[in-house]
Amino acid sequence: MEPLERLELVIKKYAEKNITIAVAESCTGGYVSHMITNISGASNIFERGIVSYGNQAKVDLLNVDEMILEKNGAVSKEVALQMGEGVRAISKPCTIGIGITGIAGPTGGTPEKPVGLVYISFSTSQKTAVKKYVFKTNRLDFKKKVLEEVLQMLEEYVS
Amino acid sequence: MEPLERLELVIKKYAEKNITIAVAESCTGGYVSHMITNISGASNIFERGIVSYGNQAKVDLLNVDEMILEKNGAVSKEVALQMGEGVRAISKPCTIGIGITGIAGPTGGTPEKPVGLVYISFSTSQKTAVKKYVFKTNRLDFKKKVLEEVLQMLEEYVS
Repeated sequence: MEPLERLELVIKKYAEKNITIAVAESCTGGYVSHMITNISGASNIFERGIVSYGNQAKVDLLNVDEMILEKNGAVSKEVALQMGEGVRAISKPCTIGIGITGIAGPTGGTPEKPVGLVYISFSTSQKTAVKKYVFKTNRLDFKKKVLEEVLQMLEEYVS
Repeated sequence: MEPLERLELVIKKYAEKNITIAVAESCTGGYVSHMITNISGASNIFERGIVSYGNQAKVDLLNVDEMILEKNGAVSKEVALQMGEGVRAISKPCTIGIGITGIAGPTGGTPEKPVGLVYISFSTSQKTAVKKYVFKTNRLDFKKKVLEEVLQMLEEYVS
């Protein structure tokens, strides 16, 4: 199935179960929110998204800890975790917070943190899980790959 | 020129002049931020975006006045103005705040506020201008039309 069809199904299922989501995106720059809101009826499950492209935005809007940011870098498991938890906390009521931080490239990579590296968190009131991926491709395909992983997490949550 | 080429030029010009922008989107749902961040180097001019899809997000994140929201409705000149001013105020330093509120459809229209209606604000420390449009089309093309108007405003500002 295409991402849009999968999203349509997810939104329908989530609406039926009164599950709501909020998204905090860095490297995907609004793409995940954009794709969700391409579906009519998205407003039943999606109330807000934060495009925290810079570090100050992560601190100001999502309450990411500045010390954690400095110690681990913006592209880290720890920051992804706080982004997911943060966006869920500021969006009430909100069942799931999704946090995405990575390096879309083509610049900005280092040997330890290469271009394509991305952490995605999935936060509920029970727990916050973070997964790590490396997608070596162009900026737009990078965003698409991240969306596919987010979709899989959303599908698994209601499967 | 295609939107991506125009965006590339705008980002280059803005970076040279140290002009920064922040975006608050409702009906476009993250599309404008997504398109800006498709350009490598976007981080020089774009630090954050807010997808304030619901009313509470507009109040919580952009300091839109609840009384103004209630009196005029979310899709109004007044709310667009406050969204542009609000996102500029919470993003420092930020030269330009863009606020977008409208009805992408297919549902949600009324005789006074039809599907396709959208207000776009362009806010600087000097003034905030709001323009009104009606784009009767599908959800994705609606977003594209809005982006074109935003692009034109951004181009005019440095022309």
